[in-house]
Amino acid sequence: MLTLFLDAMGGDNAPQATCAGAVMALRADADLRLILGGIPEVIKQHLTDADDVMDRIQILNAPEIITNNESAAMAIRQKKESAVVKGMLMVREGEADGFISAGSTGATLVGGMLRLGRVPGIERPALAPVMPGENSEYLLIDCGANVDCRPEYLAQFGLMGDAYMRKMRRMKSPRIGLVNNGAEEEKGSQLYIESHKLLKKEPINFVGNIEARYIPAGQADVIVCDGFDGNIILKYTEGIASALMGIIKRELMADTRSKLGALLSKPAFKRVKKMMDYTEVGGAPLLGVRGAVVKAHGSSNAKAIASAIRQATLMARNQVPQAIEENLNKH
Amino acid sequence: MLTLFLDAMGGDNAPQATCAGAVMALRADADLRLILGGIPEVIKQHLTDADDVMDRIQILNAPEIITNNESAAMAIRQKKESAVVKGMLMVREGEADGFISAGSTGATLVGGMLRLGRVPGIERPALAPVMPGENSEYLLIDCGANVDCRPEYLAQFGLMGDAYMRKMRRMKSPRIGLVNNGAEEEKGSQLYIESHKLLKKEPINFVGNIEARYIPAGQADVIVCDGFDGNIILKYTEGIASALMGIIKRELMADTRSKLGALLSKPAFKRVKKMMDYTEVGGAPLLGVRGAVVKAHGSSNAKAIASAIRQATLMARNQVPQAIEENLNKH
Repeated sequence: MLTLFLDAMGGDNAPQATCAGAVMALRADADLRLILGGIPEVIKQHLTDADDVMDRIQILNAPEIITNNESAAMAIRQKKESAVVKGMLMVREGEADGFISAGSTGATLVGGMLRLGRVPGIERPALAPVMPGENSEYLLIDCGANVDCRPEYLAQFGLMGDAYMRKMRRMKSPRIGLVNNGAEEEKGSQLYIESHKLLKKEPINFVGNIEARYIPAGQADVIVCDGFDGNIILKYTEGIASALMGIIKRELMADTRSKLGALLSKPAFKRVKKMMDYTEVGGAPLLGVRGAVVKAHGSSNAKAIASAIRQATLMARNQVPQAIEENLNKH
Repeated sequence: MLTLFLDAMGGDNAPQATCAGAVMALRADADLRLILGGIPEVIKQHLTDADDVMDRIQILNAPEIITNNESAAMAIRQKKESAVVKGMLMVREGEADGFISAGSTGATLVGGMLRLGRVPGIERPALAPVMPGENSEYLLIDCGANVDCRPEYLAQFGLMGDAYMRKMRRMKSPRIGLVNNGAEEEKGSQLYIESHKLLKKEPINFVGNIEARYIPAGQADVIVCDGFDGNIILKYTEGIASALMGIIKRELMADTRSKLGALLSKPAFKRVKKMMDYTEVGGAPLLGVRGAVVKAHGSSNAKAIASAIRQATLMARNQVPQAIEENLNKH
């Protein structure tokens, strides 16, 4: 039986979406137990028709809420009664195998660092969302946990990405690429030139620099970059995709013939939307901490929460944190 | 009469595309003269049916070619007989009002810096392509000329972008935004936190940090970032757009109903493609040098060359370099 801790009050649609997602996940996985941290009275209100899984739900009193508008570092130190602090400590003590939150990203990062703790040897844990590509998905690491990086961090991001893809995707030797403004080895800012040199020495399948032009085409299974650039790639993907869909929609509505065409091709566009839909992919794992931690999208609906829970379940069962430690020791 | 210098041998499709583009531009603008630098015999072969504009074409002997595979800094110093070196010097001497090349980007940058020279006070000239947005275009500065930046450079990028948009787009007060991983003032890496402080003090309409998510939506008319991040945005736009179009195409062909729909909506998709087509927009101006310099896309066809020439024409007539100097003096 696997036990995961869910921040039941975290996220734009909490606690409705978190509770509903928890129930979905439990019904899909008979070997899963969930600890829901938050305000018990509120949580219970959203578990009225979950009698079939209640025996695998533990509600834990964690009344303090950490918002996006406060300093995460401060909040983690002061709000000892928050779900993030209590949950991370339970994972540390082995009372839970993983942690999921759709709440403050900063709180999950700082909580993971300070309360759960890093994998021995890891300098900076990183957020690594699975991103949609043209034919395959890829792992983007780091997408915002570390905006100011040293080359050593990026080298470790490569090791963590390799471990995640091997364990979660059953890949023998995932291709690790470094974002850059050119394919040649000497290209890039000082940070990326130095990072390239270090990644070459790591016991991974480093395929070199990848120009942003070729990221969606799937030139690598793991895309390494600093958190500032990763955040640009993550958010710009959302922006450009919705802009392009907007332009297409506008043009399809501009003349009657295209309008009719659009009507007929609705099923195709439904599939495209599904493909770009983050709720299908799950959340972003926080790699480099001592447990299976997943940060779900803030606007997660029940389905997104359920797939983030599923993701944490697989990370724990496939022992991703241990695989990261093994990679570090090979280094 | 305005005189521009065209690197006739530069670009993947040169000299066919460059010569054809030159003729297109001359036919569209009776007050334009062009100096075509390259190997005269070769150039002449591609001007056989241009008698109507030959009186406004001067062919200049510049036999040395600078390729993408050599050090631009070295090439500019050694290849004194190249079109880039000769052209930049002619602009410096006032024998030409601007320079256009679809050849080595590095050569145009270094040539612009060392042979043409910077606008007094400008620390780093920057490449600033006009990018397609959902409803409006925006200027991206810098897109790769400077991969390692100091905050002062980004502040000047803001001043240069303001001057370009005011003069070229007739905007009273273009909105200048800074790429960042969050909207709040304190967000970002050290470089961006410091750059934000400096941009606030500049005599421009600085609208603050822009998350990459909102760049295509048109939250700013000018997007400021360092050359490494700008290069990611520029190239990733190409990559994600073509990937998304690929996914849509694949899904449209997956069932008969959608196939028929796609057939009917062809005209709409034609318009979308046109909208995303760089040949419509022209090239990337090199801002901060003493003249109207435009770097056209390496794979430019005749139409793209013609619009890059048109762009340089407008930059010279609207005195963009002078406007940049005025902005610096206001600073």
